[in-house]
Amino acid sequence: MNNYKLTIQYDGGRYKGWQRLGNSDNTIQGKIENVLTELAGEKIEIIGSGRTDAGVHALAQIANFKMSKHATEEEVMQYLNKYLPHDISVIDVKMVDDRFHSRYNAKDKTYMYKIWNEQYTHPFMRKYSMHVEEKLDTKKMRKASAYFLGEHDFTSYSNAKSKKKSMVREIHSLEINEHDGFIEIKIRGNGFLYNMVRKIVGSLIEVGLGEMDAAAIPGILESKERIQTGRMAIAEGLYLEKVGF
Amino acid sequence: MNNYKLTIQYDGGRYKGWQRLGNSDNTIQGKIENVLTELAGEKIEIIGSGRTDAGVHALAQIANFKMSKHATEEEVMQYLNKYLPHDISVIDVKMVDDRFHSRYNAKDKTYMYKIWNEQYTHPFMRKYSMHVEEKLDTKKMRKASAYFLGEHDFTSYSNAKSKKKSMVREIHSLEINEHDGFIEIKIRGNGFLYNMVRKIVGSLIEVGLGEMDAAAIPGILESKERIQTGRMAIAEGLYLEKVGF
Repeated sequence: MNNYKLTIQYDGGRYKGWQRLGNSDNTIQGKIENVLTELAGEKIEIIGSGRTDAGVHALAQIANFKMSKHATEEEVMQYLNKYLPHDISVIDVKMVDDRFHSRYNAKDKTYMYKIWNEQYTHPFMRKYSMHVEEKLDTKKMRKASAYFLGEHDFTSYSNAKSKKKSMVREIHSLEINEHDGFIEIKIRGNGFLYNMVRKIVGSLIEVGLGEMDAAAIPGILESKERIQTGRMAIAEGLYLEKVGF
Repeated sequence: MNNYKLTIQYDGGRYKGWQRLGNSDNTIQGKIENVLTELAGEKIEIIGSGRTDAGVHALAQIANFKMSKHATEEEVMQYLNKYLPHDISVIDVKMVDDRFHSRYNAKDKTYMYKIWNEQYTHPFMRKYSMHVEEKLDTKKMRKASAYFLGEHDFTSYSNAKSKKKSMVREIHSLEINEHDGFIEIKIRGNGFLYNMVRKIVGSLIEVGLGEMDAAAIPGILESKERIQTGRMAIAEGLYLEKVGF
């Protein structure tokens, strides 16, 4: 069996997320598997490094699949880009060791959240960022971000649908950068629960707007109660940026 | 009368261009005039620095309008951004001298054309650039661009619908820059005929693909025959970037 590693970029706007849902193929995984099944002449299943929610984008999602047929990296890449819809692109294909597994081997993930922080809408980025009209205080947001670093039980920052055995995750870094009217929040960790990044960003926005005090965050984490967290940032602003192996 | 200068950014994708067409208001000018007429309580007409074709974008189109009602710059800006569709934004409003006229006072214009030059589609820029899969030779394109500099009769690079008295225009600069898979062509001149930038870019692409020799351009210009020019670059990649006064 040949094992192929794919690097995938997508505009998640019109999809129900990464993970295939039954027979519906309005998912990124579904779209890619359908094309690969045609190429391979056998049923293909791809393994993603992790799921992205409905509407969430990816700059470099990683997935792998195995097939008996031999095709070069270039052939796989061309075939996929020829038949995939234009909002999903395969930007790299590598043949990898048989043992490579996108999910088990993933060490960490970096998500990026894009906020457009001007009074007016950004005509070209309106579907690719969250628009916050009121000026955010990034100093306060940076102060708040420090409370998320390290290992915590993130139950308060998860969705009730999370069925993970452990809610403990480790955040390695959380950076907040400003450029040309945008605020970009980059968060790297060993794993993220369902909705976790969007809930963390939601809290940071509340702090930036002065609606919540940064010092309240440790208490929210400790409470392990979802009801303690406020708004959740919209899916349009979230990008899976990098998967580390 | 108060004279207001607007700086406008728009995603031209779903509009029939800048210029109002009769009673149809599916134009940028129409959308803005409708909102301003509400604000002013009198019929408002805005003067744009120039027209952009159907589908063409603007990073900083300039327009002005006069109204008897007094409103601060901030009030005009907020009102417009509140009622304009999300693909049109007013990014600056200034009260200006009564004699300021967006079209008569415009000295030059800069257009930017964005080409995405990778094999695969760019999921986030597919509506905001032209996708050319085959690698373009930018050295050849730069050589070709020199032939457009200076004053020329641009009949060959115009559309039959151009009704201008003179077809002579002066190109001040033409730069070709590459970054992260994009090729950006920046062209500054004292004025542009209908479709002129898209036809010039079309020729540059033909040269970059090796389909035409750069040295053929002076002959095409001299012929003053529209039939001599080849493909026209698509509207999606074109942005009015700056108007100089």
